[in-house]
Amino acid sequence: MSDPLAPFKRVRIIRVGRATARADEDVAATEEPLEVRLHGRPFAVIMRTPGHDRQLAAGFLLSEGIIRTHEDLGAVEHCKHPHHPEVHNIVDVYLTGSTARNLEGHLQERRNILTSSSCGLCGRVTIDSLRTQAAPLGGGPVLDAALAGSLPDRLRERQTVFDETGGLHGAAIFTAAGECIASAEDVGRHNAVDKVVGRLLLDERLPIEAALAVSGRASFEIVQKAWLAGLSIICAVSAPSSLAIELAHEAGITLIGFARERGFNLYTHPQRILGAAVEPSAT
Amino acid sequence: MSDPLAPFKRVRIIRVGRATARADEDVAATEEPLEVRLHGRPFAVIMRTPGHDRQLAAGFLLSEGIIRTHEDLGAVEHCKHPHHPEVHNIVDVYLTGSTARNLEGHLQERRNILTSSSCGLCGRVTIDSLRTQAAPLGGGPVLDAALAGSLPDRLRERQTVFDETGGLHGAAIFTAAGECIASAEDVGRHNAVDKVVGRLLLDERLPIEAALAVSGRASFEIVQKAWLAGLSIICAVSAPSSLAIELAHEAGITLIGFARERGFNLYTHPQRILGAAVEPSAT
Repeated sequence: MSDPLAPFKRVRIIRVGRATARADEDVAATEEPLEVRLHGRPFAVIMRTPGHDRQLAAGFLLSEGIIRTHEDLGAVEHCKHPHHPEVHNIVDVYLTGSTARNLEGHLQERRNILTSSSCGLCGRVTIDSLRTQAAPLGGGPVLDAALAGSLPDRLRERQTVFDETGGLHGAAIFTAAGECIASAEDVGRHNAVDKVVGRLLLDERLPIEAALAVSGRASFEIVQKAWLAGLSIICAVSAPSSLAIELAHEAGITLIGFARERGFNLYTHPQRILGAAVEPSAT
Repeated sequence: MSDPLAPFKRVRIIRVGRATARADEDVAATEEPLEVRLHGRPFAVIMRTPGHDRQLAAGFLLSEGIIRTHEDLGAVEHCKHPHHPEVHNIVDVYLTGSTARNLEGHLQERRNILTSSSCGLCGRVTIDSLRTQAAPLGGGPVLDAALAGSLPDRLRERQTVFDETGGLHGAAIFTAAGECIASAEDVGRHNAVDKVVGRLLLDERLPIEAALAVSGRASFEIVQKAWLAGLSIICAVSAPSSLAIELAHEAGITLIGFARERGFNLYTHPQRILGAAVEPSAT
């Protein structure tokens, strides 16, 4: 792809309107993993938009309680390894004084977070490692384009607490016939997805041929959750990140963004959307 | 407070308009920690909106790769301890077969996440434990109400990547004179805050009397980050969660939500906002 440090990336899309579908280009906000190292050793991986990486690492360490003031920080710099392919995704941090002496404790506390994290060293590694666990999704439901565009409104109708507070994300699962079979709201958008997936799991209805609708943006983690649940269509009201698009491509998931009644953007695997056929080169 | 299981809570606010300020009531989406236990032992704490807790726990375990199908799940139920005050915030999960036999490995992988997590067993415990580390913020800047209402627009002007992609959160730090001294964008709203705080930290400008503006909602974690950075005013474009309000109250932070040119909601510590004085009982 293009410059890995750019805050957004060019992506190929299919722009689907009421009775039209055409190949086009758009830009997506870049999402890439940043590895923060303490004295050369892995401490945390943060999914972020490249830029201000040193600042992000410093602010993160303050938020995590590792440092308290600027005095606790020594060097904060991008990895200087001459050949490592991911130097732009690694920040090396060195602590000073008593904070440095507590290094082993900090690393011990964080050690296992890394092993259970959904993010590896870099997007490529993560996607590769995930692929070994889950096979790309084939088959799946086929949705009419008009139905796909109507999912955000149908989801919105079910967000009753949002109506009260304006403060909740929503997620819902719809069949190809447009029937809503699970919906949930939560202050955390990942939670809303976990709730609807968990509902189907507890009802012994997984795997299922259905589409996941989310009220906000589609990030790497949302696509990953859909993949592990076997949901092969994601319809997001807002924008997907670059890594969400890449992962959806790998996962065999049809990813829709900016979904509206009048149309939407189709990023990956358009074969599940009726009325989105364009020149074969656009996929 | 009211029913801990309700998806939203009544909160007292000051409704600040262009030349008015009056005490009122509003509702905020409930944010509470959910502890997921495996075979009675702590596995993870999730900040969530109460409701569909069993589903959330099941979906979360699927996303984390602990279970793969419904077959791996035994009982999933709220804690049945007769006297524990937080039974509604605890879900007990029992695994079956080989998944259960891997229990020790799962717990080992997660063990230290809990110890370094920003969330304890429950919101009260978390807030109490945080208070021992950070003192409530006193003093701080005093903002004119009109300036506070203008911060979202000023923040928005700096979100250049959002203009391209529609997919980024923004955060910025402003002085009481309205000068923007740091701004950042990111796919993760927590990252955007870490970036601006980290910038001031690296520039050796912390502690500072300034206000944090965020483009989205204010959650528990955003308030926590502001507290640890010593930023005593938070101005959010969208809604705060119930726990964000509670934590801001404890932290001595002035919390503004739904900030617009024409006015905003003021949730806590109104003394830092000029033009927001109402009856003393409204604070």
